[in-house]
Amino acid sequence: MSIRRINPGKRWSDITVYNGIAHFVEVPDTDLSADITGQVQQILTQAAISLGKVGSDKTRILSVTIYLTDLANLPGLNKVWDNWFEEGTAPSRACVQAQLANPGYLVEMAFVAAAEGGE
Amino acid sequence: MSIRRINPGKRWSDITVYNGIAHFVEVPDTDLSADITGQVQQILTQAAISLGKVGSDKTRILSVTIYLTDLANLPGLNKVWDNWFEEGTAPSRACVQAQLANPGYLVEMAFVAAAEGGE
Amino acid sequence: MSIRRINPGKRWSDITVYNGIAHFVEVPDTDLSADITGQVQQILTQAAISLGKVGSDKTRILSVTIYLTDLANLPGLNKVWDNWFEEGTAPSRACVQAQLANPGYLVEMAFVAAAEGGE
Repeated sequence: MSIRRINPGKRWSDITVYNGIAHFVEVPDTDLSADITGQVQQILTQAAISLGKVGSDKTRILSVTIYLTDLANLPGLNKVWDNWFEEGTAPSRACVQAQLANPGYLVEMAFVAAAEGGE
Repeated sequence: MSIRRINPGKRWSDITVYNGIAHFVEVPDTDLSADITGQVQQILTQAAISLGKVGSDKTRILSVTIYLTDLANLPGLNKVWDNWFEEGTAPSRACVQAQLANPGYLVEMAFVAAAEGGE
Repeated sequence: MSIRRINPGKRWSDITVYNGIAHFVEVPDTDLSADITGQVQQILTQAAISLGKVGSDKTRILSVTIYLTDLANLPGLNKVWDNWFEEGTAPSRACVQAQLANPGYLVEMAFVAAAEGGE
């Protein structure tokens, strides 16, 4: 079975797919001056695009690990998060506080999703 | 292939299963006044119940990521952990310090396990 | 389907393999007095050995979660990391700051990789 990679770079691939499972990580790509709701919206919008690239969509996410630089932003995160998923399709979720590679990031999310390819 | 979800809520599903793999996250559900050994025992007891819901059991855990709010609690965690697994069945394990969503939590664990369903 | 485990101990297995997917975690095993580049080199060398044990290699890594005790070490990590992967084979990657179980560790990495076995 071969591994499918989207945008494989020197440091990481944007998405890997193997045996019907996609791994990808999102940080806010558009506007780091946004507050937590804006950064979460950016990440979820990007995630939907990533999922589309591997024959998946936001109803097929299995697990998300959320890293927040400040847990005080958790209510803001949940406000956007809770309205994003279609009923009955939310993934397993872990959420912890951690500092991130770019001081402008308030949040980073690691996704595991059902996908097509890598078979 | 369809995704099986246990208790899918607005924010998360308690368990997702796809292609024979379960993802679920546990925090202490019963008594947050418990010390680290009590909280770990709660989590492992809950994990056994979760595994039972997807046709799995504690001998079929593949990976656990442990988030501890204070690494000083690691010896207490290990005391309970080391006695829980049947010989020869311990999973891959990462353990790091991180603050958690509820200040009463001392520990959170993210599990990946072999399971039935989602096929 | 059975789970293959490499060196299953009381606390963890060095590697688990199920349904063609390996989970394993590496910390520097050889020399904790090494700086970040030395510790990352140790981990990547160990990872290559681990992958070899399960019929995989460094071109078949799907996802890596990197825990760094100090994000100031990120440039040093990337220096070694960027030169290790063969072109077009880098995995999905998350990188966060977290304190680790042994105060001598500067970095810990959790790997998910395509592998043989557990089928």
